[in-house]
Amino acid sequence: MALSEFDLIRVFFADLGAARPDVLLGVGDDCALLRVPAGRDLAVSIDTLVCGTHFLACDDPESLGHKALAVNLSDLAAMGAEPAWATLALTLPEVDAGWLAAFSRGFSNLARRYGISLVGGDTTRGPLSITIQVHGFVEPGMALRRGGARPGDLIYVSGELGDAALALLSQGGVPVALEALPGVLDRLHRPEPRLDLSARVRGIATACIDVSDGLGADLGHICESSGCSALIRSGSLPLSQAVRDYISATGDWGVALSGGDDYELCLTVPPECREVLESAVAGLSVGLRWIGTVEEGAGVRCLMPDGRVSQVTGRGYDHFC
Amino acid sequence: MALSEFDLIRVFFADLGAARPDVLLGVGDDCALLRVPAGRDLAVSIDTLVCGTHFLACDDPESLGHKALAVNLSDLAAMGAEPAWATLALTLPEVDAGWLAAFSRGFSNLARRYGISLVGGDTTRGPLSITIQVHGFVEPGMALRRGGARPGDLIYVSGELGDAALALLSQGGVPVALEALPGVLDRLHRPEPRLDLSARVRGIATACIDVSDGLGADLGHICESSGCSALIRSGSLPLSQAVRDYISATGDWGVALSGGDDYELCLTVPPECREVLESAVAGLSVGLRWIGTVEEGAGVRCLMPDGRVSQVTGRGYDHFC
Repeated sequence: MALSEFDLIRVFFADLGAARPDVLLGVGDDCALLRVPAGRDLAVSIDTLVCGTHFLACDDPESLGHKALAVNLSDLAAMGAEPAWATLALTLPEVDAGWLAAFSRGFSNLARRYGISLVGGDTTRGPLSITIQVHGFVEPGMALRRGGARPGDLIYVSGELGDAALALLSQGGVPVALEALPGVLDRLHRPEPRLDLSARVRGIATACIDVSDGLGADLGHICESSGCSALIRSGSLPLSQAVRDYISATGDWGVALSGGDDYELCLTVPPECREVLESAVAGLSVGLRWIGTVEEGAGVRCLMPDGRVSQVTGRGYDHFC
Repeated sequence: MALSEFDLIRVFFADLGAARPDVLLGVGDDCALLRVPAGRDLAVSIDTLVCGTHFLACDDPESLGHKALAVNLSDLAAMGAEPAWATLALTLPEVDAGWLAAFSRGFSNLARRYGISLVGGDTTRGPLSITIQVHGFVEPGMALRRGGARPGDLIYVSGELGDAALALLSQGGVPVALEALPGVLDRLHRPEPRLDLSARVRGIATACIDVSDGLGADLGHICESSGCSALIRSGSLPLSQAVRDYISATGDWGVALSGGDDYELCLTVPPECREVLESAVAGLSVGLRWIGTVEEGAGVRCLMPDGRVSQVTGRGYDHFC
């Protein structure tokens, strides 16, 4: 017997994630009722993952539940917001209890880890797609916006870049060393939102964004919003051994400069805050690497190993001088 | 040239709807930044409309933009919340500027009418589907929940029931009088959220829901949440002439009792509040009709014209005594 929409929601999506006193009414009425703490602003972000565009029908549903929430939490991290609530609109071609159980487990495990409650949702029939909205809190004036970078600011990036792009290439047949493959695939399928790091850089960073579309595209958004340019050094980019090996073998810096899906943070700080920043993030398992400097002008440029400077865009990089 | 996701958002979805001082940062950063007024709780609801399930690819995009927002606003109305903000996650098979212009016009015209600002969104490529989350404000303790109905309460419904179901039947070939057809189709394609009515019944109604899945199903949710039953009278249901004519010709009360998509409000009030309620809604263009009474027990029953009592469920109605 096919479960009705109401049964579906009740079985898999009631009480998902953490219990929170600021959820006055969760899943099950016409609306959820929520209380934002006094003296806090609300940060919200909505993102959709579509089967065939962002993932494959055969992808592991538990990882998908994790990733769908993680990419949204990454937006809260990029804004410097403390995560609180999520809503989930799930469109399914059919009711598959095993798939739903695994998906909701992946979602819930990540949600609990960051104290997030699922407060509402909608389940509809149609081509597989997942839309999640996340809600977080931020002190007035403390949000990490894109437009605050100034010439002279130092540019940092968290973790390592390019593994998710390399994982996509490996699915297309590009060889990756067998021992490196699980780690690289994990970066694509189970990204980790940099919320702990974000909490440490609030009040220090002048601008921040998460690297979802590639460093060139996303650092480009900071430059555009801030009215400035960026010069980064390829030799300073934080890269895993697998990505280093791939670049050594192919000369293709695209995985690191314009590959997406890394969900690392890219941020800027004034040079006089360098020590404050580095001591603020000391001890975190995921660190920050200084990769370049904000300058006057527009666009993102990268100093390549051969000494030439390339222009980096969302589509790739080109030598232009 | 195909527009990129960023171009799409910028052209059609920047500054959609009303400008509001509580939107600190709208479309264009990692998150929107919003300020809930002091002393108000936040009500949120998310709903998806999927092409092929909830609408057809050939449907008028302007009406679709209206309807996608309206069905969400109907949830705020059912909760007694004052509407404020919306987010929009739109999945499109292709970039069609004409379609997008019409869709955003339908969305924006309704949003402006109720003072709602579009604060964020995501545009992805895939099978056509529309997910909207709405956000509203409610005074603590004043939300219209489903679980407050008590035996003896009077049951009211707004507007008229069954026109949207009749419109669906007419698309399937059931004849509807030519002069009635535009009005009936309008009820299906351009539902009107009952926000004005909702604002008047806050503090009076003991329970409220919007009739999206049919009167039987939705009044059934009030009964289930409140731990009681409902007895309604077919002769008291507010019906348009077109629906009356259809029922006279066919004897099929299903359009009024279990047809969905009407987006009217169904609410309960204690009998001693009858006059307060009726004077509170006096002068509104859309009124309330008393259709029955809350009783002990479970389920929804309807006194039919032949004097028999039918059990009404989400799937239809059956004589059982």
